[in-house]
Amino acid sequence: MKKHYSGLKLKVLKKANPTQISIKGYSLWLWASLGVMIALIPWAGQAIAEVQTPSMVNDGIPDQIQIALNTLWVIFAGVLVFFMNAGFAMLETGFCRHKSAVNILAKNLIVFALSSLAFWATGFALMFGDGNSFIGLHGFFLSGPDNSPAVAEAYQGIYRSLDWAAIPLNAKFFFQLAFAGTAATIVSGAVAERIKFAAFVLFSLGLVGLAYGIIGHWIWGDGWLSQLGFWDFAGSTVVHSVGGWGAFMGAVLLGPRMDKYPDGQIAAIPGHNLAISTLGCLILWLGWFGFNPGSTLTADPEAITHILLTTNMAAAASGVMATLVSWRYFGKPDLTMIINGILAGLVAVTASCAYINIVSAIAIGVISGTIVVFSVVYLEQWHIDDPVGALSVHLVCGIWGTLALGLFSIGPDVYPWYSDVGGPLAGLFFGGGYSQLLNQLLGVLAVGFAMIAFSLLLWLTLSFTVGIRVSPMEELEGLDLSEHSMEAYSGFMKEQERGR
Amino acid sequence: MKKHYSGLKLKVLKKANPTQISIKGYSLWLWASLGVMIALIPWAGQAIAEVQTPSMVNDGIPDQIQIALNTLWVIFAGVLVFFMNAGFAMLETGFCRHKSAVNILAKNLIVFALSSLAFWATGFALMFGDGNSFIGLHGFFLSGPDNSPAVAEAYQGIYRSLDWAAIPLNAKFFFQLAFAGTAATIVSGAVAERIKFAAFVLFSLGLVGLAYGIIGHWIWGDGWLSQLGFWDFAGSTVVHSVGGWGAFMGAVLLGPRMDKYPDGQIAAIPGHNLAISTLGCLILWLGWFGFNPGSTLTADPEAITHILLTTNMAAAASGVMATLVSWRYFGKPDLTMIINGILAGLVAVTASCAYINIVSAIAIGVISGTIVVFSVVYLEQWHIDDPVGALSVHLVCGIWGTLALGLFSIGPDVYPWYSDVGGPLAGLFFGGGYSQLLNQLLGVLAVGFAMIAFSLLLWLTLSFTVGIRVSPMEELEGLDLSEHSMEAYSGFMKEQERGR
Amino acid sequence: MKKHYSGLKLKVLKKANPTQISIKGYSLWLWASLGVMIALIPWAGQAIAEVQTPSMVNDGIPDQIQIALNTLWVIFAGVLVFFMNAGFAMLETGFCRHKSAVNILAKNLIVFALSSLAFWATGFALMFGDGNSFIGLHGFFLSGPDNSPAVAEAYQGIYRSLDWAAIPLNAKFFFQLAFAGTAATIVSGAVAERIKFAAFVLFSLGLVGLAYGIIGHWIWGDGWLSQLGFWDFAGSTVVHSVGGWGAFMGAVLLGPRMDKYPDGQIAAIPGHNLAISTLGCLILWLGWFGFNPGSTLTADPEAITHILLTTNMAAAASGVMATLVSWRYFGKPDLTMIINGILAGLVAVTASCAYINIVSAIAIGVISGTIVVFSVVYLEQWHIDDPVGALSVHLVCGIWGTLALGLFSIGPDVYPWYSDVGGPLAGLFFGGGYSQLLNQLLGVLAVGFAMIAFSLLLWLTLSFTVGIRVSPMEELEGLDLSEHSMEAYSGFMKEQERGR
Repeated sequence: MKKHYSGLKLKVLKKANPTQISIKGYSLWLWASLGVMIALIPWAGQAIAEVQTPSMVNDGIPDQIQIALNTLWVIFAGVLVFFMNAGFAMLETGFCRHKSAVNILAKNLIVFALSSLAFWATGFALMFGDGNSFIGLHGFFLSGPDNSPAVAEAYQGIYRSLDWAAIPLNAKFFFQLAFAGTAATIVSGAVAERIKFAAFVLFSLGLVGLAYGIIGHWIWGDGWLSQLGFWDFAGSTVVHSVGGWGAFMGAVLLGPRMDKYPDGQIAAIPGHNLAISTLGCLILWLGWFGFNPGSTLTADPEAITHILLTTNMAAAASGVMATLVSWRYFGKPDLTMIINGILAGLVAVTASCAYINIVSAIAIGVISGTIVVFSVVYLEQWHIDDPVGALSVHLVCGIWGTLALGLFSIGPDVYPWYSDVGGPLAGLFFGGGYSQLLNQLLGVLAVGFAMIAFSLLLWLTLSFTVGIRVSPMEELEGLDLSEHSMEAYSGFMKEQERGR
Repeated sequence: MKKHYSGLKLKVLKKANPTQISIKGYSLWLWASLGVMIALIPWAGQAIAEVQTPSMVNDGIPDQIQIALNTLWVIFAGVLVFFMNAGFAMLETGFCRHKSAVNILAKNLIVFALSSLAFWATGFALMFGDGNSFIGLHGFFLSGPDNSPAVAEAYQGIYRSLDWAAIPLNAKFFFQLAFAGTAATIVSGAVAERIKFAAFVLFSLGLVGLAYGIIGHWIWGDGWLSQLGFWDFAGSTVVHSVGGWGAFMGAVLLGPRMDKYPDGQIAAIPGHNLAISTLGCLILWLGWFGFNPGSTLTADPEAITHILLTTNMAAAASGVMATLVSWRYFGKPDLTMIINGILAGLVAVTASCAYINIVSAIAIGVISGTIVVFSVVYLEQWHIDDPVGALSVHLVCGIWGTLALGLFSIGPDVYPWYSDVGGPLAGLFFGGGYSQLLNQLLGVLAVGFAMIAFSLLLWLTLSFTVGIRVSPMEELEGLDLSEHSMEAYSGFMKEQERGR
Repeated sequence: MKKHYSGLKLKVLKKANPTQISIKGYSLWLWASLGVMIALIPWAGQAIAEVQTPSMVNDGIPDQIQIALNTLWVIFAGVLVFFMNAGFAMLETGFCRHKSAVNILAKNLIVFALSSLAFWATGFALMFGDGNSFIGLHGFFLSGPDNSPAVAEAYQGIYRSLDWAAIPLNAKFFFQLAFAGTAATIVSGAVAERIKFAAFVLFSLGLVGLAYGIIGHWIWGDGWLSQLGFWDFAGSTVVHSVGGWGAFMGAVLLGPRMDKYPDGQIAAIPGHNLAISTLGCLILWLGWFGFNPGSTLTADPEAITHILLTTNMAAAASGVMATLVSWRYFGKPDLTMIINGILAGLVAVTASCAYINIVSAIAIGVISGTIVVFSVVYLEQWHIDDPVGALSVHLVCGIWGTLALGLFSIGPDVYPWYSDVGGPLAGLFFGGGYSQLLNQLLGVLAVGFAMIAFSLLLWLTLSFTVGIRVSPMEELEGLDLSEHSMEAYSGFMKEQERGR
């Protein structure tokens, strides 16, 4: 790896590019807030939420019928989440250059196949299998009668009337597999246009088969974070931050693309096909209607439609806000910002979508739509190269969404659908003080620390074995030719690249 | 706005282009029919249908289960309708030039976000809230226990066994929101390649937040048109004509693209990506399986599968017919006509899909597949510029479909699913005489008049404030650069435009 | 048809192209196996399975509710299968050259419209209508009270608690129509870039309206093959091989594209848009979650989630295997092989998905992922030109999947969901001996023979009437201009073709 491509040195270089904007004020405020939050951590220990034993509240619907309804619901939702693979593939491919298209497509296609095998072999067992507070130890290869009664009660779905066991094990696995695949896909975008295909494949296997499962166990598998009162309804942290941290470490260790920061300046490298990127955004929006409401795992009409709406309104508000912010600061409404704004809102509302009201969802979206624009700018100033904005969307807004639960949670005994499991405490803005917010911060830090360590180890291991970055010559030529000996758009004439 | 771009002067210029075809005979027949229909309006007043109070006919399924089934069904259908945003985005983008792609994508993406906010704030309340025959006055911001008992009984869904209240309010809102978004999206295509982004955004807000809700109230919110016996099952008028009229006024006031009618002749401006347009068509076809059958709001097996089939067969017949007609008249089977033919059939069957048999659906499709081809030709001769054919599909075939209900309605007490609410009278071809047809014509005219007035007012207001049309220089350069400072297909070499 | 384009002479020409690989060893093994299999045919007659009369095993769910659940499930699944039209359109279009894009898009779009009309008029009646062991004779135009009680009991769905009559006739028709459309679409890819549009349209009508229905009747309509104990759960043979044989005969009779085998060598003709091909693959993967699990026609939680998983795991294993095999033999992971590998797994598991365990599904996928790569190579060596790999995926892996049922079937009385109907015997690897394998081979041969005869007759008839192949001039120019007078990517600059 040639030194000047390395993103490991994070110092902000001189601002020479006219598209840069002044963010000093924001920066100060952000760091100050972070400092205060960290200072408050000692209180977090007191905030252990009580997880009640679920009771039967199935409103008189016979079990057999409820199970059939739930299964239809979970398959529907799981299939939508599966389709997010197409969304990510189109989004990421379109945002990169045509000379990398085959490579990104191949990565996004094979990753769900790999995830299927890895999550079946180990990931699911580590995540939901009976074990201890840190790791699941049963149910490898989907063996055993069901993946442990402990998990049945501990999974942080909102509706426990028939326990988690109210759908077939296969349904649970498929739904969770779709989530695991999502986490792996997130990495793909941030490391695009310079990573070796083999390195990505191996990292994905490690992430889905190992890290995702173990960390997920802490939160959704009756693990220590859930026992301490950390809540993440549909995975702002479990899925998006976990994937985001892996992507972050990959982007940092790989360093930026060779023509992204020429002479310390910031060069815009526009995507080659914004039509498929927009399609990808809409497919992802569609998929989130499975991602969030489906995480109930139960066809509870009030719950799933409420979550559907909080999800949609956060996305809408975030998309509009990102449009306005980019319009204000860049002078034009930027399509890539509209796209990432919508996705930012979807990621941000994921942790809390079941526990907040619609106005709060809009507020979360307004903030995520602002954050995502500045995050993209920050990351460029730090010379981290994230070709598709994956870090800003999934990591930064995943963290924001996880914390936002501590601000906007409406508290127990308001919405009927999680009254049986307690649910998170009321948030800071809803009279609950700092307790839940600190719980959330604890989870963010713990997962961040764990994923940084894991990713560092795995990326470095790959770096010293198969190697993680293609040669400058291959990068210049494009990964499609060097890694796959084919091009995505045969027959079309392409422009010579700028600056050559 | 330079004078020769204006589409306000509708006179037919000399036919010089070889692709024009002789349509004099058709023209005469059309006008004569219209004259006769208008002459028959006085009878319309007598045709007030009796709307019965719905009774419980839920076949012994307990309410809790029926509500869960209905909710799953409505979410499934609503999600399909939401996905139509991707369909419209791909369809319209592909049909225009690459230099406008970013702009069209951005419009189609932001419009659902805007619709979500506007329909939540005001649109839904105006449409379905308790009020009077002209407007709803309760339920802004989804407030209140539910959106009025009046609406529960008045909504023109076909199946009222558990009232409209048989699904959660959030489910109703989401489903209706997806429809409202569709209406706004229709405008996007007809005004493409010359409208200012800001003008489109503001028009969409006005349409969804105001006009769509009020006019929708007349038909689906127990308003005066439904009381007079006008029926529109899933929105040939409520959604497609309303959107179509807004699009029509926009296209007329904007005038044609500067190189569409050079020297009074008709220039073909081919789309830049028919692959994504075809994808868009198939996504829309898919979405219609939610649009029409979902409008039952009830998981009634017989009703939803019947509607599924009438919808599909009309689309199939219309697509085949448009293929044959275009093959006959243009010499070749024209892909854009196959696409618009399928969509025309879907729009046309929307009003009547629950009230007709399958042969009637095919007949409606055969006619819409013919109409749409000639409509495209007519509009070009009138020098109205509709880059994607939105007016021919949504406005013209929306009107045709609304009238077709008056021709093909099978009448009350045939199909069980709407026997409780009466439903439309038998149509002209089914022994019911002209009554229902005249009711339908009344609705077409009323909605047309209202939308023309509203759109004229709003477009002109925008015209005198933010301006609605980009400068000729910006148009020549393409809206992607002028409005967004980016291009959709970076890295590909593009041809110089014809005639330069 | 100029002689040197003809694919009728199947002799293997001299291997001059460096992409060719040595497959002699495999070839021998394959032919030997085939010989052994054919030699064992006499035993097949003894293997007539007993088809039991279904009993009521609906677990205490009232019929009305079960019917509503089943209908929702079948609509959901059918809609997913319908969406496969978009998948095939994108897959095939992207794999061919840009000069044929409009043609392929038009074919794939119109084919479902045509199928809708043809299957409604005759296909459904021939397939599922009351009649004899060879053909259905009632229910044309969906007439009659329901399509015969015989069929209700004989349809080879796995779950017969409420008979096939447990969903409305319209639901059955829609679901089966989506399947019929798939069979027709398969042909499109193999004959791409040289067939006349009219010839394809007419062949599709004949296939869906006649051959598909009759052959399907043998297997899914209580016909002679099902009576002899041949099982094909969701259509490896009924849909994929039937379509595949039609495609094979078309590709052979048309001969290869004029620049595919210059001077007896093999020229690679790369696809023009692998982004939409990848999208197509993911849409097809999505669609298969309706195709296979939906074929239960019943919302049985255990059955549908099991089938969902066998389907997914076979696809995953096959995709990974094709990646590895292509990496090993071609030196690089080939995106087109990843795509076709995934599809091969989906096709291969389709026959047996309800009757096998997950490890068997993975084994079937591992083999299909290997077969598909070598099949592509073989077909090229035989100078059969299949631009998109449809023959390798649908025909070869359809046959493999049908035979695999005879190897991996777990046997009766293991899974509860087909215990009422007996289901296939245990396979060779599960202690059942050769009986079921021979039943399967019988079906493969019978369907192959029937489809070869039918396709030969129909293609030749078309050849001597409308003609099936465009002129060399038109082919050189591209079918978009010659058949449709339009191009798919207007405004983009295209490269001159190689070798000119």
